[in-house]
Amino acid sequence: MAKAGVIGSGSWGTALARVLSKNGHEVTLWSRREEESRMLREERENKSKLPGVKLPDDILCTTDLEQTVEGKDILVLATASPSIRSMAKKMAPYVAAGQLIVDVSKGIEESTLMILTDVIAQEIPQCRAAVLSGPSHAEEVGRDIPTTVVAGAKDRETAEYIQNLFMNKVFRVYTSPDMLGIELGGALKNVIALAAGAADGLGCGDNTKAALITRGIAEMSRLGVAMGGHIETFNGLTGIGDLIVTCASMHSRNRRAGILIGQGKTMQEAMDEVKMVVEGVNSAKAAKTLAEKYGIDMPIVQEVNQVLFEDKPAREALADLMLRDKKIEHPELPWK
Amino acid sequence: MAKAGVIGSGSWGTALARVLSKNGHEVTLWSRREEESRMLREERENKSKLPGVKLPDDILCTTDLEQTVEGKDILVLATASPSIRSMAKKMAPYVAAGQLIVDVSKGIEESTLMILTDVIAQEIPQCRAAVLSGPSHAEEVGRDIPTTVVAGAKDRETAEYIQNLFMNKVFRVYTSPDMLGIELGGALKNVIALAAGAADGLGCGDNTKAALITRGIAEMSRLGVAMGGHIETFNGLTGIGDLIVTCASMHSRNRRAGILIGQGKTMQEAMDEVKMVVEGVNSAKAAKTLAEKYGIDMPIVQEVNQVLFEDKPAREALADLMLRDKKIEHPELPWK
Repeated sequence: MAKAGVIGSGSWGTALARVLSKNGHEVTLWSRREEESRMLREERENKSKLPGVKLPDDILCTTDLEQTVEGKDILVLATASPSIRSMAKKMAPYVAAGQLIVDVSKGIEESTLMILTDVIAQEIPQCRAAVLSGPSHAEEVGRDIPTTVVAGAKDRETAEYIQNLFMNKVFRVYTSPDMLGIELGGALKNVIALAAGAADGLGCGDNTKAALITRGIAEMSRLGVAMGGHIETFNGLTGIGDLIVTCASMHSRNRRAGILIGQGKTMQEAMDEVKMVVEGVNSAKAAKTLAEKYGIDMPIVQEVNQVLFEDKPAREALADLMLRDKKIEHPELPWK
Repeated sequence: MAKAGVIGSGSWGTALARVLSKNGHEVTLWSRREEESRMLREERENKSKLPGVKLPDDILCTTDLEQTVEGKDILVLATASPSIRSMAKKMAPYVAAGQLIVDVSKGIEESTLMILTDVIAQEIPQCRAAVLSGPSHAEEVGRDIPTTVVAGAKDRETAEYIQNLFMNKVFRVYTSPDMLGIELGGALKNVIALAAGAADGLGCGDNTKAALITRGIAEMSRLGVAMGGHIETFNGLTGIGDLIVTCASMHSRNRRAGILIGQGKTMQEAMDEVKMVVEGVNSAKAAKTLAEKYGIDMPIVQEVNQVLFEDKPAREALADLMLRDKKIEHPELPWK
């Protein structure tokens, strides 16, 4: 049995706190707002963000950050990606040397283009930062629907420690050393999900979406490998797997925003209607900047940026993707 | 303008005949049965197999094989995969030296474990065999929904010739030299689609399906690479792309059969209800034999075979997949 502190009681933090508690660990769940913490304490349910999922009675719900951090074997950082740095700053004074922090939020910091475990390590240099990611809608994990994820850490012992804490009959955890690849996949897939959603909104079919997903993972991989990630990771659960789940599911805010844009709404109208942070919009900008920095051809990312920020109609963007030059699928393969 | 003969007037043959005709080529469409050919001639529609899609008036519909084959620049072989060998035998006397035959059907010959272009080349040694494959439900191609496919041939000139004939604003064609990888992907994905369908039938969610697809392409790739295919191909349109479309769409007979099996029906009951050849059932056997021959670990293929042929309940098979040993996602990546 381990002691775990989960920081952030949104849908994903709540679902993971429940997994750890059901696996027999002692869990403290931190909320930013006292009224959310009180709801969790009294109703044992996050009625707005993860309705219908009961929290085990022995999860301690609090707004006391020091109490959540101190003495824990593992800290799970589950706040929204834009607030990871400010959260890490607040936690830093309480974090012990070598204490393990697992990032479970997905994104690239817009101003610095840093991945989130690097942001955490910068703000809390004394910690060991790791990551848990994969195709895992909180709504399904909260209902014990079979799910697979990957625990990424620099050293194998840390990755296996995380694997042992989280794994159970319906939550299968793989390990990986490729933290950079895992985090880039999780952030970039939201851009492709916007494009796939737009194709749905335009009334396209399964053929079109499969093409966007396949060519999407190809351009994500090109960038990720240029940045130092491993191709295998982009072809695995945290790359193509997470991309598939995001493009297929109505749980995905990015896909839903894309559908609205495909139907002719502006980016702002779509964001207002989805009523939540659409991480793909920030990641689209970051991906475009990274593509330019590393000299990588990313046609889907380019078109998404033009649709989001230059008012290009989604229909035109799709037509331009279809009408590109005649191409070899994988130019590196030899002909006879 | 080229002269094309399309052999087989099922949904895919009919949809491709229409693409070629709309691109300005002279198309002859061969049907096995005279009544089907008469329906196509008179009604300009395959009402049973591709309802609602009108055939251009200048497609010549016939049951005369010699007329369909002789003098054509390209032959498109679109019969069901189990009848490719017998069809190739019948065509052989009419095929000229160097005449191009493009296989568009997907499967592995059960008795020989051969890919279909090898079957064609064996029966018609004087021909040039090539392949066209990808995420492309005929029902969507017939409605001009944007679709991408890959033309595979040994030499670049042949692949580009096929690309030029088929490509248009809504039908994007890539080229590739990896015919083996293309054909293995097209055949093996049907086995994974059965598993994904079964997960749906069991009431699992998007997380579970994304995991099955991702781990499924991983085991398909392991086998395909051992057999001489290229990993890039399995990560491309004819591999993961086709797998995604098959697992996502109700157009897929393999997925529909899987759903019924997940709901508790036997293989035979599922086959009867879907009322069509379910290619994944044959491919499942072939994949298991190939996995043993090449010494490849294919846990999903193993479980699918046990469910299909040894009456293992689908729920148990899924639980066994989730409860395997704790694993590293990509054992080849280095730890710090």
